[in-house]
Amino acid sequence: MSAWLLPDHIADVLPSEARHIEELRRGLLDTARSYGYELIMPPMLEYLDSLLTGAGEALNLQTFKLVDQLSGRTLGLRADTTQQAARIDAHLLNRPGIARLCYCGPVLHTQPDRPRATREPLQFGAEIYGHAGMEADVEALALALDCLRGAGVKDFSVDLADVRIVRHLCAGVMVDAAVLQRVHAALAAKDATELAQLTKNFPAPAREGLLAILQLYGDEKVLKEAEKALKATPAVRQVLQNLQYLAEQFTGVNFTFDLADLRGYAYYSGTRFAAYVPQASDALVRGGRYDEVGAVFGRNRPAAGFSLDIKQLVAVVPARPLKAAIRAPWAHDAALHALIAQLRQAGETVVCTLPGQDDRVDEFRCNRKLAQVDGQWTVQAL
Amino acid sequence: MSAWLLPDHIADVLPSEARHIEELRRGLLDTARSYGYELIMPPMLEYLDSLLTGAGEALNLQTFKLVDQLSGRTLGLRADTTQQAARIDAHLLNRPGIARLCYCGPVLHTQPDRPRATREPLQFGAEIYGHAGMEADVEALALALDCLRGAGVKDFSVDLADVRIVRHLCAGVMVDAAVLQRVHAALAAKDATELAQLTKNFPAPAREGLLAILQLYGDEKVLKEAEKALKATPAVRQVLQNLQYLAEQFTGVNFTFDLADLRGYAYYSGTRFAAYVPQASDALVRGGRYDEVGAVFGRNRPAAGFSLDIKQLVAVVPARPLKAAIRAPWAHDAALHALIAQLRQAGETVVCTLPGQDDRVDEFRCNRKLAQVDGQWTVQAL
Repeated sequence: MSAWLLPDHIADVLPSEARHIEELRRGLLDTARSYGYELIMPPMLEYLDSLLTGAGEALNLQTFKLVDQLSGRTLGLRADTTQQAARIDAHLLNRPGIARLCYCGPVLHTQPDRPRATREPLQFGAEIYGHAGMEADVEALALALDCLRGAGVKDFSVDLADVRIVRHLCAGVMVDAAVLQRVHAALAAKDATELAQLTKNFPAPAREGLLAILQLYGDEKVLKEAEKALKATPAVRQVLQNLQYLAEQFTGVNFTFDLADLRGYAYYSGTRFAAYVPQASDALVRGGRYDEVGAVFGRNRPAAGFSLDIKQLVAVVPARPLKAAIRAPWAHDAALHALIAQLRQAGETVVCTLPGQDDRVDEFRCNRKLAQVDGQWTVQAL
Repeated sequence: MSAWLLPDHIADVLPSEARHIEELRRGLLDTARSYGYELIMPPMLEYLDSLLTGAGEALNLQTFKLVDQLSGRTLGLRADTTQQAARIDAHLLNRPGIARLCYCGPVLHTQPDRPRATREPLQFGAEIYGHAGMEADVEALALALDCLRGAGVKDFSVDLADVRIVRHLCAGVMVDAAVLQRVHAALAAKDATELAQLTKNFPAPAREGLLAILQLYGDEKVLKEAEKALKATPAVRQVLQNLQYLAEQFTGVNFTFDLADLRGYAYYSGTRFAAYVPQASDALVRGGRYDEVGAVFGRNRPAAGFSLDIKQLVAVVPARPLKAAIRAPWAHDAALHALIAQLRQAGETVVCTLPGQDDRVDEFRCNRKLAQVDGQWTVQAL
């Protein structure tokens, strides 16, 4: 096979897209910093046990494994950064109050998530630890939406959900795990026939609640309907009120509620959000509350946050033009060198034409050149 | 073992160092862009064959291997980005003229390079392809030194070398590879006794040249001495003149010449440079000319460049202070939210104190707060 062939779902990022990704990356990190989120850089490689501790089977299947020559132990390449951030919060920082952390770096997947997904997303995310109140959920969502706006995403809509509604409905129902899994699949597929079949021996309130929830998709009115349709217990009512509260904190955002949505069931412990744009079938951002994430590292405290893949984001935002460059000749001339250095310091791109080479420049369009007029080097329009 | 234990020579980067690394990263990429170097992002994973094609055995030993579930083939985690950049230049861009590329991302090593080195350097580098003249060497070194200056490195010195001198001296000497390897080791260790023993059956010019070269270390005068001591052929004389030319293009830089230095023998094809600072035993930057690097990808054309590890760099440059932040209360108040958004847009960090939480903020020192005066939200000193 040819030496330049890359594995499936692995790709080079070439100049103009790479520049755009770098600009998005900086914007996202700056937005997170403006909210007081501190940057951390967890490693690409960890002992597999640490990476998968407390995580679901899905993450295990997604994680590349290799052997550490120094210890003989199995290492994993991180497939997600959330666990690592939780480890750092719990074990290394161990702060008494709130910790706000953000991160940005590659993660690797053994198999693509979606039909055309990369196996090497560039994951950006932010997490807030230590606050159980809805304010942390609000801040996480506000930051996520500001990140999208800063990146130039318009027309996004936000889905809100909470897996605790299904959990509450199934609470006390004695059923084996395989059946429960099929119930979840039927809910995800919105398959009422299958769901009715699976729940025929469930107690009436659970059965009716699960069937009702299939219809509970849409705007805010869904929350009021749910209170009646689910014969909401105080716990379920609190969940519905939290969703309402979360949506009320934002103006001009198009919210949809999907009470049967169970994505991340094993992972999220409270409200959950996902932002969509018309151009992409999969969510651009996913986040929510996962209070138990730090428990395995010895510190079970509240956590909320979100993450996104910048390689997915770059595909849906308009490219930004690159500032035009200045062309300079190659000459042994201290005055020329000084002017070039000064222009570069001032943020200009100055490309030197090497002797015998044509002055074609690809990604950098030159609209000016350096030329000597009466012994003085000056910038001239091209 | 504890879930939070990391493998040896693998570490988390915590907030203040991570911020500093991010600032250095941006500065390096901006400096490269100011010279017209275009950013590329090659993948972390490739087929092992592609990563190691044309590279030496050393890179093979440093490269983590794993199995691709999609193809069943062996993948490697990149241990160096130079080969990847050459592949992109040769195969994907395939430009007729000069290509200037830069990159920045993690590389992974099975074993640390040096006693206390990380196995996950953050490699930044730049390469210029397509120009055989010394101007490309000059530009690569100029950019490398501007990168160091921009990062705040002072008092660096630069070693210059060229493996072709030893190559020329040994040209035509019939000797097996094992002996040649021991000759190289003796040169590296500057072991004259061993070298005399190994070369006792070499032709006199080669033997005398190799013994003479051991002493050829020091400032510019070394180049003149070398011409005599090595009974320089025109080819060797050209190499010495190139080294002289390279050094002459820079003012205020402390150059040392080491003609017996063979590091990267398998890799470099011309002049080679390395920058050192007093605080670190290993070079901060290494670079030079490696004209054959793209050959295996179907395009054998001139190349020069350099790379450095930002994690090594951050340890030797002074930390930069973080701009102090503004503390804001949590309130349902549109005017407050508008002011916070405006301050964040303007580059300020505004940290909201969540209800019931103390307002201790760790990495971000707050020197101002938002408070309401006569119904107006204002920024006040703390």
